[in-house]
Amino acid sequence: MRNIKITIEYDGTGYHGWQRQPNGISIQEVLEDKLALITNGAVRLIGSGRTDAGVHAVGQVANFKTETKIECSGLLRGINSLLPMDIAVSDVIDVNDEFHSRYSAKSKIYSYKIYNSPVRSPIYHNHSWHVFGELDVESMRSASSCLVGTRDFSSFCAAGGDAKTYTRTVLNCSIVEDAPMIVFIIEADGFLRYMVRNIIGTLVDVGKGRTTPEAFQEIMIRQDRTNAGITAPPQGLVLREVKY
Amino acid sequence: MRNIKITIEYDGTGYHGWQRQPNGISIQEVLEDKLALITNGAVRLIGSGRTDAGVHAVGQVANFKTETKIECSGLLRGINSLLPMDIAVSDVIDVNDEFHSRYSAKSKIYSYKIYNSPVRSPIYHNHSWHVFGELDVESMRSASSCLVGTRDFSSFCAAGGDAKTYTRTVLNCSIVEDAPMIVFIIEADGFLRYMVRNIIGTLVDVGKGRTTPEAFQEIMIRQDRTNAGITAPPQGLVLREVKY
Repeated sequence: MRNIKITIEYDGTGYHGWQRQPNGISIQEVLEDKLALITNGAVRLIGSGRTDAGVHAVGQVANFKTETKIECSGLLRGINSLLPMDIAVSDVIDVNDEFHSRYSAKSKIYSYKIYNSPVRSPIYHNHSWHVFGELDVESMRSASSCLVGTRDFSSFCAAGGDAKTYTRTVLNCSIVEDAPMIVFIIEADGFLRYMVRNIIGTLVDVGKGRTTPEAFQEIMIRQDRTNAGITAPPQGLVLREVKY
Repeated sequence: MRNIKITIEYDGTGYHGWQRQPNGISIQEVLEDKLALITNGAVRLIGSGRTDAGVHAVGQVANFKTETKIECSGLLRGINSLLPMDIAVSDVIDVNDEFHSRYSAKSKIYSYKIYNSPVRSPIYHNHSWHVFGELDVESMRSASSCLVGTRDFSSFCAAGGDAKTYTRTVLNCSIVEDAPMIVFIIEADGFLRYMVRNIIGTLVDVGKGRTTPEAFQEIMIRQDRTNAGITAPPQGLVLREVKY
């Protein structure tokens, strides 16, 4: 039995997130259905992790077991000809039997786009969070520097999660300005539910001067999410890469 | 009577172009209807020029006459609260009575995005032309250099146009690579119908090696569009700025 790894790009606007669910169309469901047609057998995709409704990906990864004899290049062409325009597979390769998209992942990179302008953007409205007032990016950068390292991220975790531990290691974190866009990029060995969106919500408070960079550090150290900012909306978030 | 100049940003995906027409919804129609509500009187917008169905803008300009006493800042807030998410007004100012969006324009800047990758992009599919095979950007740059200056652009004009002259002056022209995106930027004192899209179609032939840079120059000099390439699709095109 082959174990095949695929890399997936999608515009999450029209989907109820990555994970298959009874109440709405998901990226996983569309991919599994089309892969089943091509490989002529049921396909169960193992994703590297969920993305929420409205969140996008340029480098989501999943793997599946199959008996098909079709070459990877043929699978790539075939799946892309069947998929809707808002989902594409950018890579298909055979991997060894032990490879598991979720458990084998070493780290993931997410980006979050903030459109910082007095006027909303018709072009980026499904791909950024529109923040009206001018943000102080230097303060945001100063605050975000404390995220790097092995930390307890309870303050930025959604309530009611089932995580066994709230400790994660952030490997890199940067903020790139491309006015009026502010792009936050973060790499970690794992992410808690809503972690990036909660960090962004709190960082925007810093950018607005409502929270000082020191208070941002305090919020993280106190491990109490009631002090954190709002959860930033999903459409600014992109899963950029999963590293193995 | 006031003469008001507005700057408009739009995602043209869902519209039959800028110009009001009987058979489909246009940007102009939506703007005129909403402005009429705010100013409490019929509004006739004069645009700097048409954009075709599916073409976008970040800096379209239009002006209109009105008796309203509402300040520009109030008009800006009001119109944006009524417009759909894919249209926004970024600036509203009073201008002198002689200002005419079309006749007063000194030059316009357009950009055209080519997504050059073996796999199509779910995120940019409404905002770029997907070209599979790798393009030789240096050849394209070499060919496009002959566009700058005062030239007869008949070779790149749509058939059946009603232009009085095919001579236009291209002030600047450049190609920026941001892999896998190739962005063509052109500034001219005016543009013929489909001019940018016909130039792009022919430049892509150059990038593919089907047409040499020298042959591209020949096509332009011969003033015969039967030698030019296909008309590139609308969704890669953006009206970036109108200069006065």
